[in-house]
Amino acid sequence: MSPTLDRVLDRIDATLDESLERLFELVRIPSISTDPAFAADVAAAADWAARDLASIGFSAAVRTTPGHPMVVGHWQGPVERDAPHVLFYGHYDVQPVDPIELWHRPPFEPAIETRPDGSRILLGRGTADDKGQFLTFIEACRAHVAVTGKLPVRVTVFLEGEEESGSPSLPAFLDENHDELACDLALVCDTDMWDRSTPAITATLRGLVGEEVIIRCANRDLHSGLYGGPALNPIRVLAGILADLHDANGAVTLPGFYEGVGEPPADLRVQWDAIGLTAAEFLGPVGLSQPAGEMGRSMLEQMWMRPTAEINGILGGYAGDGFKTVLPATATAKVSFRLVAGQDPQAVRDAFRAFVTQRLPKDARAEFKSHGASPGLAVAFDSPALRSAQRALTEEWGTPALIIGSGGSIPVVGNFNRQLGMDSVMIGFGLDDDRVHSPNEKYELSSFHKGIRSWARILAVL
Amino acid sequence: MSPTLDRVLDRIDATLDESLERLFELVRIPSISTDPAFAADVAAAADWAARDLASIGFSAAVRTTPGHPMVVGHWQGPVERDAPHVLFYGHYDVQPVDPIELWHRPPFEPAIETRPDGSRILLGRGTADDKGQFLTFIEACRAHVAVTGKLPVRVTVFLEGEEESGSPSLPAFLDENHDELACDLALVCDTDMWDRSTPAITATLRGLVGEEVIIRCANRDLHSGLYGGPALNPIRVLAGILADLHDANGAVTLPGFYEGVGEPPADLRVQWDAIGLTAAEFLGPVGLSQPAGEMGRSMLEQMWMRPTAEINGILGGYAGDGFKTVLPATATAKVSFRLVAGQDPQAVRDAFRAFVTQRLPKDARAEFKSHGASPGLAVAFDSPALRSAQRALTEEWGTPALIIGSGGSIPVVGNFNRQLGMDSVMIGFGLDDDRVHSPNEKYELSSFHKGIRSWARILAVL
Repeated sequence: MSPTLDRVLDRIDATLDESLERLFELVRIPSISTDPAFAADVAAAADWAARDLASIGFSAAVRTTPGHPMVVGHWQGPVERDAPHVLFYGHYDVQPVDPIELWHRPPFEPAIETRPDGSRILLGRGTADDKGQFLTFIEACRAHVAVTGKLPVRVTVFLEGEEESGSPSLPAFLDENHDELACDLALVCDTDMWDRSTPAITATLRGLVGEEVIIRCANRDLHSGLYGGPALNPIRVLAGILADLHDANGAVTLPGFYEGVGEPPADLRVQWDAIGLTAAEFLGPVGLSQPAGEMGRSMLEQMWMRPTAEINGILGGYAGDGFKTVLPATATAKVSFRLVAGQDPQAVRDAFRAFVTQRLPKDARAEFKSHGASPGLAVAFDSPALRSAQRALTEEWGTPALIIGSGGSIPVVGNFNRQLGMDSVMIGFGLDDDRVHSPNEKYELSSFHKGIRSWARILAVL
Repeated sequence: MSPTLDRVLDRIDATLDESLERLFELVRIPSISTDPAFAADVAAAADWAARDLASIGFSAAVRTTPGHPMVVGHWQGPVERDAPHVLFYGHYDVQPVDPIELWHRPPFEPAIETRPDGSRILLGRGTADDKGQFLTFIEACRAHVAVTGKLPVRVTVFLEGEEESGSPSLPAFLDENHDELACDLALVCDTDMWDRSTPAITATLRGLVGEEVIIRCANRDLHSGLYGGPALNPIRVLAGILADLHDANGAVTLPGFYEGVGEPPADLRVQWDAIGLTAAEFLGPVGLSQPAGEMGRSMLEQMWMRPTAEINGILGGYAGDGFKTVLPATATAKVSFRLVAGQDPQAVRDAFRAFVTQRLPKDARAEFKSHGASPGLAVAFDSPALRSAQRALTEEWGTPALIIGSGGSIPVVGNFNRQLGMDSVMIGFGLDDDRVHSPNEKYELSSFHKGIRSWARILAVL
């Protein structure tokens, strides 16, 4: 380790209380983006972030959109070397706090609590998602600048205020400011560690195609006493089609579904197998004991590298208390496909609709409604930036940093990829139990402190 | 035809206006059994019926039960010959009238209306179900007594006031009055003709087993982003099981399901085929074009002589507007089996539960709720009473009377069979379009008039 980096890390340790005070200032602003009643608070949080960046030496501004503002800050001071230009992304808005009565203390009055084992946690809405997370990066920049007067690489910070509301203004903002925001690489701090002591870089995200299918048979509900037998039952039609969606090995049967789906690199598979995650550990807490996905694939592969078909909802006929001998006119299901990199969302949607339509008996019709489509995504598993960051994390935490996937999606990563032609490296220090969308959100003090130190190291080696 | 019967029929024609006035008196009493607010009216209708029977010469009484009363009347005058003792069943209670605003005239102010084609209909709640129907029999008795001073056979009349409320007091009443009510044969007047000009005797009724199945997997709803793949989805489990319930030919796959199910006699099958009912006629009005029941069976067989499995309701996951990527903890279906004579309801229930349980993957559990069980029923297709009644109906209507089945159930027929050891002959003069449980209930004047004449003939030949 260079003596300079040593001094940067020492300064981070020495000024942790000031870093925490800045986090708490920001957490005290109730920047709930989904509720119009908090619009002024959202704006106040954007102002706070721009001022904070300016205090480090960024040229920062609050940028208006049709919705909540964006904050963009460019480091225009000296950099240490002709390094890549990175775009750092975070979001300063937070989730609503309902049900408020379940909070043990007011959500916007942050506090530090010491647990029986001596570990400490930061309490309050946004301590983790995403105020605490994105400040780990900003504070790392602050320390570099304080010690050296420079940043190791060129940095642009880009903070959004609508992430918890579906980012309605993001795509247009990226298009309108393409040249300003298109960098060599994006850094995204909105993900988790593998566990409390093991850092992780997220390299795959799954996309999603949502479909609603309505099967229509008779022109009205019929009585099964009279019509039971001759009359076609749409629930039976629907159940038959849905039952066909998977084969006996748990694979999805849509023709062409796995086209373009790649295998994880051998070294990654070895790493994932070495994690040794058991069904008891992962599924036990939710009352299950056995992986139910594709046979022959580990649970981590099933979640991170394999697409799925899921029935998220079904409704038909009489579903209230008691019993009615009705033959309903319609039956409906909501079906989603989690996609991985290489799959075409529109092709999957088309394949599903054809699959259903081909299985309709005479007298049954199907209607479809689209509920969103986003592709899956994988960054290059062996890019120099990712490998450098992995080494830096390993040094900081003393435990090998894992390359992992995410079963869900982080839409902005797709936007960066498609609109700005930019790969992302997703590093975050959240934990499974941070309750990020629930009452009593917390962030580990170790996540905050070692998160800052981690970014300081990563900036130094990028 | 005997000269005596001729005179009886002439009298029926001559006194039709008086018969109608009696029907209208009864229809004016709003004897809605399901609504406690009408309890006094239900009692008044029972009183009316007992007085009416007494006016003919029956020894009649209103008999209390824990619910609404029964009316029992014994003919104790002379009979023409040593004939069978018949128990005639009807019900004097009626359905509620909601939604009242859809009635074209007040439901309890009966009236006669002449249609453009010259046919006339009786309007009002209960004109068909079952006040008009059961009075066809009473008025036939009145005419016989008026002309001859006798009835052709021994008659006991048994009228219920809870048929539209599920007959809660019936089983105990039959047990407590077994010896008084157990006759050689029951006559039940609560069924339909085949069409406006074709009389029919109903010889089969389907029973019903209702089952609710709840599939439970995880101990709480999960997010498909994280758990999609490894976590078992109860909707998928349920759809797979339900899809298995029928084979490719539309037959039910429960082991033993068809045990005891008989074939219709050859002459009945010939008769049914001769009806020539087309899918366009039967299914066209409800928007279907093709029978969906067991292949190789006519629609009439599918409805009258074949058991079915139907999914009457299904619910799981998110079924509201929009989309949620939930993996639900549970999924539920309501399944019913229409049964025919020879099937054991408990065996069908057991077979269904075993069928579901055997198909559960590890980590899925099933809970079951019973929603009633009643066996299917078939009277002897060739009993002398049925054949005599068929000839009498054929003579009255000038069109061969059909032996038909009913896809639904008439529970009292099962009670008579099981509790009193008595077969029933089901003859009624209702039509499909009588709107018996809907606003604007009507009964054809021809059904009432020729119904009385039909019973007069049947009484003469039994």
